[in-house]
Amino acid sequence: MRKEIKRIKVKDLLVSKSFGKEVHVKGWVRTKRGSKKIGFIALNDGSIIHNMQIVVDFPEFDEQTIKQITTGSCLSVTGTLVESKGKGQNVEIHARHIEVYGTADPDTYPLQKKGHTLEFLREIAHLRFRTNTFGAVFRVRHTMAYAVHKYFNDKGFYYLHTPIITSSDAEGAGEMFRVSVLDDLNPPKTPEGKVDYEKDFFGKETNLTVSGQLEAELAALALSEVYTFGPTFRAENSNTPRHLAEFWMIEPEMAFYDINDNMDLAEDFLKFIVSYTLENSPDDLEFLNKMYDKELLERLRFVVEKEFIRTNYTEAIKILKNANEKFEFPVEWGSDLKAEHERFLVEKYYKRSVILTDYPKDIKAFYMKQNNDGKTIRAMDVLFPRLGEIIGGSQREEDYDRLKGRIDELKIPVKELWWYLEVRKFGTAPHSGFGLGFERMVQFVTGMSNIRDVIPFPRTPRSAEF
Amino acid sequence: MRKEIKRIKVKDLLVSKSFGKEVHVKGWVRTKRGSKKIGFIALNDGSIIHNMQIVVDFPEFDEQTIKQITTGSCLSVTGTLVESKGKGQNVEIHARHIEVYGTADPDTYPLQKKGHTLEFLREIAHLRFRTNTFGAVFRVRHTMAYAVHKYFNDKGFYYLHTPIITSSDAEGAGEMFRVSVLDDLNPPKTPEGKVDYEKDFFGKETNLTVSGQLEAELAALALSEVYTFGPTFRAENSNTPRHLAEFWMIEPEMAFYDINDNMDLAEDFLKFIVSYTLENSPDDLEFLNKMYDKELLERLRFVVEKEFIRTNYTEAIKILKNANEKFEFPVEWGSDLKAEHERFLVEKYYKRSVILTDYPKDIKAFYMKQNNDGKTIRAMDVLFPRLGEIIGGSQREEDYDRLKGRIDELKIPVKELWWYLEVRKFGTAPHSGFGLGFERMVQFVTGMSNIRDVIPFPRTPRSAEF
Repeated sequence: MRKEIKRIKVKDLLVSKSFGKEVHVKGWVRTKRGSKKIGFIALNDGSIIHNMQIVVDFPEFDEQTIKQITTGSCLSVTGTLVESKGKGQNVEIHARHIEVYGTADPDTYPLQKKGHTLEFLREIAHLRFRTNTFGAVFRVRHTMAYAVHKYFNDKGFYYLHTPIITSSDAEGAGEMFRVSVLDDLNPPKTPEGKVDYEKDFFGKETNLTVSGQLEAELAALALSEVYTFGPTFRAENSNTPRHLAEFWMIEPEMAFYDINDNMDLAEDFLKFIVSYTLENSPDDLEFLNKMYDKELLERLRFVVEKEFIRTNYTEAIKILKNANEKFEFPVEWGSDLKAEHERFLVEKYYKRSVILTDYPKDIKAFYMKQNNDGKTIRAMDVLFPRLGEIIGGSQREEDYDRLKGRIDELKIPVKELWWYLEVRKFGTAPHSGFGLGFERMVQFVTGMSNIRDVIPFPRTPRSAEF
Repeated sequence: MRKEIKRIKVKDLLVSKSFGKEVHVKGWVRTKRGSKKIGFIALNDGSIIHNMQIVVDFPEFDEQTIKQITTGSCLSVTGTLVESKGKGQNVEIHARHIEVYGTADPDTYPLQKKGHTLEFLREIAHLRFRTNTFGAVFRVRHTMAYAVHKYFNDKGFYYLHTPIITSSDAEGAGEMFRVSVLDDLNPPKTPEGKVDYEKDFFGKETNLTVSGQLEAELAALALSEVYTFGPTFRAENSNTPRHLAEFWMIEPEMAFYDINDNMDLAEDFLKFIVSYTLENSPDDLEFLNKMYDKELLERLRFVVEKEFIRTNYTEAIKILKNANEKFEFPVEWGSDLKAEHERFLVEKYYKRSVILTDYPKDIKAFYMKQNNDGKTIRAMDVLFPRLGEIIGGSQREEDYDRLKGRIDELKIPVKELWWYLEVRKFGTAPHSGFGLGFERMVQFVTGMSNIRDVIPFPRTPRSAEF
């Protein structure tokens, strides 16, 4: 037999006007306070940051049940929804029946009422979803992920699942995780004494992908506009608040877009993500603004409201050289910009988000379209306050000979990229694309300063728990 | 300077009524036919399965341009949109200007007008997006992926990115890909002579995940309703039309759902995916129905319209034993059902989609909630026509002692699962979830018989091209 009254989420009950009606709510106890006669339980079910206040006439319940209601325990409550006279909430539930689903021993449950450091909560990532902070962060992360899909779907882009296991190295960076099923101690060997990957699962050496871009380009040159949203990997031994070994990337690729169309899309896309999240996660963002970053909401509105500045790398170098500012790293035409330079341009010089184009070809990837000056390529980086680079993209080199020339020049093994070259041989077209590291963007929108706090179970050097 | 007229997609032009207006269209030539004086080009830009007919007054264009327009070449066309008098289309464009972006040498371009086998197209997966079949399949795949996100978002579920690299084995199946950065030829060794994974990137042995369920449960026991949609991996040496080494899974996990709520959700979810796709990809589905599977649309409507039958494993065994049907595999209480058994129940006996519950505990995973009979568990499998099992799920064991008992019984190494046990110790709650293999579902909705034809770049034994 099914239960008579359907459970209602706290999110829906808090805006309900069904005063006097019997309702059914379930969730986890955040706090219990009160006197001998009357108690107040703050119950949270994760649907929203706010708690539902449960008012309990202690004498009406058996002592054992009341005793089991402690911070962290899980309850099913039936009672009457009433207008609250207390501060801090509009509605509360006067409990008629309480069932304790699961207790949480106060002596061992790690999430007691007192505050915890983010470092400590990272150690108990299986429980940190139950805190205000991580409830807020992961609800915002959801809203942003949904905004990504909605944005591209509404524009007619097709979502593409590019491969995770791959034999090509899209960035030529080489910092990849190897994927294998060979015996780790005694792998089969070739006559030359190397590991014989011909005998491995895929019949060749394979790695975890660093980017879905190259494969996405193949689809764009047929379906016009596509995007990826999937995990990517870097075996980079960087223990910083900005690096993860496993992170999610969004990579749109569009046929018939030149660098200007690409900039239009990137600006419109970023503004949409931020404004959609401001609109759909207001309570969580207000909490994060209050607790972690007092300028968060202001910064988000700044990005949405101000038109991005568009200029080029060479101009940026001039500005930085003339700036009356002490930089840690030198500024020189030909070297890559550091976060301090990018932030100076955004936060102090332009006071706007900035898109820089036409970088020196030697500091960018082989697939970017070469300008006729022989020195620069049609790259574009979007720079944000606080973070620096948030998006990297370019018009892609669609000319077979120029692409092949650059590949040869850089001695990139062409064997694994025959298919990438071949779409330039058959019906090539001008096309562009960019990549957005999703966690960097979640950091920006939530104001969290460590990237490990915006992905449920972070993978970093010496850490793959859970 | 930006181009004057914005490119319009074929999809939008085909329903446009702006006759007489100048328009701008880009895409790839599917066919060119005509006489010396007038030509007809079928141009496709991937936005929709249909082509735009371009009418060309040959004498008005230079010979070189006309010669370069062959199947597979990429064009930018400006011309006047007019009502078509020809068969097969309502509008066409009378070309005023044509630019050839990329040629496609008829002697070497592999996608000539004639039909190609799916096997051949798999070898050129970088180009198969340009065929009607794969354009349709990957647009439908997009529509279905979007439907998944829309369904859960509208219901208040939160999208969760569970880890890809993991040190736990959710299924206890053991067929996993190892992830490592250690020297493949001379890895560091422990004093006992084993590979010393303490020296590896993560400080321990890691693999590619086989499921995000266990981690999703952690989030469900805080946020109430979550779902994953990410890649999962099996290093299973199965070269069949139903197996991939890398595939995408959708795994919702919900606190406060019992097995009945779980069945309600699974049925509603599957029906939504199918009906959303019928509504939003009608042209592609009609094409696939016509070319590959004449009963496709009928089968899809069957799933949407008919209520699923709900019964249990023991009842199903009785039906199968009494059936006047020759099965390849024997039917015996205690052994798992094969596709032939599942399809018999769905296609011949009930003539409905079926949900079977309460399987013998020994053929299912350790985390499923045990019934009080000591023999069965609260599993549920959803069985579909043509495919057999499409969804596997269960109410989860929320009782710490019973879960620990089962883990010990099966000798599952508990060291890597301390966090999974701990959420049963602190505020446990009844909860349920299920898993849907996305590619199986795309196979079902597109009617494609080989799973390698519904994922852009399939990974299978001895195959990781592109």
